[in-house]
Amino acid sequence: MGSLPVSTFKPLDIKALLEEIPVMAAFIADYYKDIETYPVRSKVEPGYLHRLLPDSSPRFPEPLTTILNDVRNDILPGLTHWQSPNFFAYFQANASNPGILGEMLCAALNVVGFNWISSPAATELETLVMDWMAKFLHLPREFTFASGGGGVIHSSTCEAVVCTMAAARDTALARIGFEGITRLVIYASDQTHFTFQKASKLVGIPPANFRVIATSAVGTTAVGAVDPLAPLGELAREYGVWLHVDAAYAGACAACVEYGQYFEGLDRADSFSTNPPKWLLSNMDCCCLWVKNPSPLVSSLCTDAEILKNDASEAKRVVDYKDWQISLSRRFRALKLWLVMRSDVEMAEQFERMVGMDERFEVVAPRRFALVCFRLRPKKGGSCEMNRKLLEAVNASGRAFMTHAVVEGKYVLRMAIGATLTEERHVLGAWKVIQEMADGIISEDDQ
Amino acid sequence: MGSLPVSTFKPLDIKALLEEIPVMAAFIADYYKDIETYPVRSKVEPGYLHRLLPDSSPRFPEPLTTILNDVRNDILPGLTHWQSPNFFAYFQANASNPGILGEMLCAALNVVGFNWISSPAATELETLVMDWMAKFLHLPREFTFASGGGGVIHSSTCEAVVCTMAAARDTALARIGFEGITRLVIYASDQTHFTFQKASKLVGIPPANFRVIATSAVGTTAVGAVDPLAPLGELAREYGVWLHVDAAYAGACAACVEYGQYFEGLDRADSFSTNPPKWLLSNMDCCCLWVKNPSPLVSSLCTDAEILKNDASEAKRVVDYKDWQISLSRRFRALKLWLVMRSDVEMAEQFERMVGMDERFEVVAPRRFALVCFRLRPKKGGSCEMNRKLLEAVNASGRAFMTHAVVEGKYVLRMAIGATLTEERHVLGAWKVIQEMADGIISEDDQ
Repeated sequence: MGSLPVSTFKPLDIKALLEEIPVMAAFIADYYKDIETYPVRSKVEPGYLHRLLPDSSPRFPEPLTTILNDVRNDILPGLTHWQSPNFFAYFQANASNPGILGEMLCAALNVVGFNWISSPAATELETLVMDWMAKFLHLPREFTFASGGGGVIHSSTCEAVVCTMAAARDTALARIGFEGITRLVIYASDQTHFTFQKASKLVGIPPANFRVIATSAVGTTAVGAVDPLAPLGELAREYGVWLHVDAAYAGACAACVEYGQYFEGLDRADSFSTNPPKWLLSNMDCCCLWVKNPSPLVSSLCTDAEILKNDASEAKRVVDYKDWQISLSRRFRALKLWLVMRSDVEMAEQFERMVGMDERFEVVAPRRFALVCFRLRPKKGGSCEMNRKLLEAVNASGRAFMTHAVVEGKYVLRMAIGATLTEERHVLGAWKVIQEMADGIISEDDQ
Repeated sequence: MGSLPVSTFKPLDIKALLEEIPVMAAFIADYYKDIETYPVRSKVEPGYLHRLLPDSSPRFPEPLTTILNDVRNDILPGLTHWQSPNFFAYFQANASNPGILGEMLCAALNVVGFNWISSPAATELETLVMDWMAKFLHLPREFTFASGGGGVIHSSTCEAVVCTMAAARDTALARIGFEGITRLVIYASDQTHFTFQKASKLVGIPPANFRVIATSAVGTTAVGAVDPLAPLGELAREYGVWLHVDAAYAGACAACVEYGQYFEGLDRADSFSTNPPKWLLSNMDCCCLWVKNPSPLVSSLCTDAEILKNDASEAKRVVDYKDWQISLSRRFRALKLWLVMRSDVEMAEQFERMVGMDERFEVVAPRRFALVCFRLRPKKGGSCEMNRKLLEAVNASGRAFMTHAVVEGKYVLRMAIGATLTEERHVLGAWKVIQEMADGIISEDDQ
């Protein structure tokens, strides 16, 4: 044997780590202490960071305290603060204690669970937690492993949509032959999340075959509306179409029986996905996808490489998650979801209390869940410009951050309530900013 | 306004977090103290965890200490320990202090950087770090943002391959029309990583058009061989083919000038990817992809949704990473890579010392980097079964874990050296296990 590294370079040094973790914890605590003092949406200009940091990596190692000083001075001002209680934009991506601790443990163990043998607990905890979550959300039993279906944790809804669309495509092509790919057609409403169109293009469906159906004030991401699952399920069954239900945001509400009406007909879907960081406090990234029948998914995504062969897989006694997702590598995300589900089971009760808001201004789409779409009432000659100004004024104030949508040609403000730290005073505060800015814009408009 | 949640439910409670983090840190320290006492490859049987844990989520919240007890008793025995110094399987996925701390900070800030405005620092630090990394690896200048190219952090090599393949497909289809998708052909060697075939199918290339070229003892993942980039680059240029160079494992060696020969011709590639967790201590997940010209990638993956519109994007003054990857959502992975690059710059020097090994038995493919492919010398009547038994005996011992490959019909053992905690004594120890098990198998065979 030749000589192997004998060196003082110890990149994984637990003794040092035990000294560094409290430093990081204190930094995090400081960040949260000050979080309401930062503008919610960052005020930096494009290119700001390149003016602050060197353009090459350093020549010598730097201590954590130096790096954290740079995070404080250079990075924090450039963040849009997703955990701020004044964040009402897009949908939330919520952190929680067990979510953060779960990520920490996941990083420390740093196992890779692409197939069962590469770390059995990673796969088995994921199958278990996905069955737990299916029960928590009152999903039809056929979606659980216990009943022949099953779930997987993806990085995002986009991944879930790409994978189910590939499975749907291959199911159709098995009937008509691969040459038929140019004849496959996708129908979507004009409010369908753009992920759907991106996924469709990614899996090779001709972009011209993506047919958009105009709708009235219903939709999904923009205004929080829910498609009627039961009649769609009937249609899908009649025409042999794969039905995927994406409930990235509202899926969490399935935990509350009061919202059961929105999920009626889900038993006719082939697959269902929801995004726990949005409302179930599970930190980025984490998207839960369930299928009733794993075979088409696995058949589209499986790989069979000599290097991965092992007895458990050959005997078909295990789930190999590499065949349920795009990537081979995967983090142990189930650990985090498991910690969250064990620590935060009060979540379901909280939802009921989180949706009790009145509307001012004009509410454009009926409110469901905790998303309010509103605008300044139009005056002679339209209101788009006025509402656009209002939103920009609110966001530029740094006191709250919300986004917008265009529904039936109307420009509306979207206030998504649900950040973990948001209390009544933050919603009231945001409302006050809106009113102040509206005062200015209306009086300006009247002159 | 109606009433909003007034509750004692505080899922994100920094005071509590400051008490929980030290508990988690102590748990992690214990894990590493004991890591060499666990069997490297888990010895559990399929389904073991379902026998230990309840089949529904708990009704009441449980404290962290209870959950960590379950991790210790139920999860750890089911792990295959990727951070064990006796892990020589697949390729490594290495953790490090800055990698773990970076993940911790990423989870605590929990920002989502899909476009620039959604958290400017997340995008800007990523463009900066990708330029740093490009310099560190001596990549051709055209791959940097500074010279019109650019890089993005994906979750995995699979994602990088899917995205570049979609870009290559759409570049070709722009010439021949979308109907031509059924005529597109992929050529690959029989040793090409299976990701390539999976990605090809995922983007809609007919599986029958994936043409496999038989090779002699060269390849990639299995034996750590490197394709000759310069002549391949010439061919690609001649035929107008997109050339992607995947150096998931060996890419890190580009940092050392001694390995420069393997990267000659890289200037002719359109894109290049490498996986820092394998050799650059960056924890899962993290794959760096660079392109010389971002336009085809962005054109294939871009989305244009009303809800994401903002001034900075409209003015094309910023990078919107959602258009460089599959997913919309993305974690702030650049933070981790930045911490690692600032803390562990001694890495490059270490590589030189990590590859000085002799070979015993029969070395099947020439050794490059820190991967050795070997087998027991064949006796009359072949050696596959004998070497398969040897590998299983080594792995079942729990004292080391390595994997296998089949090259030119020969079953070989693959010993990938490079776990962060591996020292000379672990390699010597593994060698001792191999010899002991070989003694048993050879004498059994002689009887």
